[in-house]
Amino acid sequence: MTDTSLMAAEIAEIAPAVQHCLTRNEGAMAALGEMLRRDAPGHVITVARGSSDHAAHYVGQAISQRLGLAVASVGPSISSVYGARIAAEGALVLAVSQSGQSRDIRHLTEMLGDTGGLTVALTNRADSPLAHGVDHMIDIAAGPEQAVAATKSYVCSVVAGLMLVAHWAQDGALQAALQRLPDALDGALRLDWSAMAAHLEGAERMTLLSRGAGLSVAQEMALKLMETCGIAAQAFSAAEVLHGPSALLRDGARVMLYATEKTGAASIVDTGARLTAQGADVLAMPPQLPALHPLLDPIAHLPAFYKVVEQEARRRGINPDRPAFLQKETDTL
Amino acid sequence: MTDTSLMAAEIAEIAPAVQHCLTRNEGAMAALGEMLRRDAPGHVITVARGSSDHAAHYVGQAISQRLGLAVASVGPSISSVYGARIAAEGALVLAVSQSGQSRDIRHLTEMLGDTGGLTVALTNRADSPLAHGVDHMIDIAAGPEQAVAATKSYVCSVVAGLMLVAHWAQDGALQAALQRLPDALDGALRLDWSAMAAHLEGAERMTLLSRGAGLSVAQEMALKLMETCGIAAQAFSAAEVLHGPSALLRDGARVMLYATEKTGAASIVDTGARLTAQGADVLAMPPQLPALHPLLDPIAHLPAFYKVVEQEARRRGINPDRPAFLQKETDTL
Repeated sequence: MTDTSLMAAEIAEIAPAVQHCLTRNEGAMAALGEMLRRDAPGHVITVARGSSDHAAHYVGQAISQRLGLAVASVGPSISSVYGARIAAEGALVLAVSQSGQSRDIRHLTEMLGDTGGLTVALTNRADSPLAHGVDHMIDIAAGPEQAVAATKSYVCSVVAGLMLVAHWAQDGALQAALQRLPDALDGALRLDWSAMAAHLEGAERMTLLSRGAGLSVAQEMALKLMETCGIAAQAFSAAEVLHGPSALLRDGARVMLYATEKTGAASIVDTGARLTAQGADVLAMPPQLPALHPLLDPIAHLPAFYKVVEQEARRRGINPDRPAFLQKETDTL
Repeated sequence: MTDTSLMAAEIAEIAPAVQHCLTRNEGAMAALGEMLRRDAPGHVITVARGSSDHAAHYVGQAISQRLGLAVASVGPSISSVYGARIAAEGALVLAVSQSGQSRDIRHLTEMLGDTGGLTVALTNRADSPLAHGVDHMIDIAAGPEQAVAATKSYVCSVVAGLMLVAHWAQDGALQAALQRLPDALDGALRLDWSAMAAHLEGAERMTLLSRGAGLSVAQEMALKLMETCGIAAQAFSAAEVLHGPSALLRDGARVMLYATEKTGAASIVDTGARLTAQGADVLAMPPQLPALHPLLDPIAHLPAFYKVVEQEARRRGINPDRPAFLQKETDTL
């Protein structure tokens, strides 16, 4: 199989794009972190859709774990459809939009600034309307992305958010681990995930289970399986799945565990064992990289997954760059 | 088909249970509403899992629309698995647990109280550990519920939360409409939803689309279809689905629109038309009740859905009271 898709080319660009994002934003993040320690927000509001929303959830999980703040994901429809005005006094407002073009994301973010929030945008377009309307713009510096499936822009959005967390929390271990992330992302591309490729073969449905930051990645994985391979994929917390959805996971139903870090792994593996006992076909975590940092390991493995997905799409006769009925930028109300 | 299941009996008890919840809690809600206006919270944190979490999202949507506050849904794993301490100074903490027994829900709620939050529990067990550990306990008064699928306890949790919103916001229209809700819930049981029954017949998958408070109900509907009928159901925002999942909704894929209130309906119907054009089999909203209130219409129609689900489970040879592999109370970490 030849590697000719834009998606494959962009997956190969993840590690250098992350290196660029780290280098370019070091100074801005140090300044922003200092400001956030001085005028400490009491809570955080994120504004995003699609893959960007999954990136926002990842960063939100890191903020809750390292800064001890509650993070509200506010859907743009609250203002665009329901006309509500949301108070953001004392809040950090984090908008994530790779294109920076969506009107509803921009309007909600500006409204939250008007009601007292400090607005920060993570975007891949420094000249976009969103970038111009916020207090602080962070250019995730992923470079041009042409495939419909967001890959390097998703990873760079997460990395930019984690840089912010590392500087804000003055977390030296996380800062140091971020510097080693590009090498890990490269290493992930060389992992043997043929077991996952076999698990996807012919699948109409797939259930992904994880926890914490890994759950955000599992949700992003499910979205990629839907949009790129036409597989009906759902991601659940390994705890939440026992509140109902596990009824479906029997009779050979395909399940994949995404357990990259020790703390959450025990309960994910335990849920996997319960589902195996009731007849599900459970793929444990494919081969892993050496541990880097609990907040980075979920994202570090993603290139291995993207590679399998790109190949699975082509195996199904789907052009991974242009899945049917999807657009790169989606403007909704 | 005879109506002998506990689930069917409990569905018939929804309207009287809601009447009981309204009568019993009127005084407590008036007092709590006054207190919340006096010591106005700056944001809200919800703590819940499963059906209770869907109820919490519904109430959260109402809080955002009517009180203009951001609502963070904090997963119990943040403390039970990741050991973080979340600051809740100035926040209203709303815990929802029908059983009040889950240790992780209780521990997180108490921790949020310790860090400065005002804690309120909505529970069906006034003598539960959760009820004893909060500043204010609201007994949703749904009465005993024995079927694994939560029906009347879900509706009563939402109603208790909406009573709180109505009193807190001094929203006379919402207060008056709540008094008419039991009649509407009774009326929903007499709606002809045979079109939905036909749409479910033989379905392995189902996609539900809605917005706002209706999206919380669509998520609860998807959970019921999974746990009671073994149908792989997913609910999406009618805007969010265009960010990827819509790629799957073609070639006869079954979709149901849940559009109960005018404001959100236009965009839901528009998304439905796009999906029909790409080949999906889209069921528009089945026959509706006369409009009651935009924040009540999504919940008012739910008994019609529950009835169809209970009958579909039996048509598939599943005991709706005891789906395989599920327990009424789930204790997770």
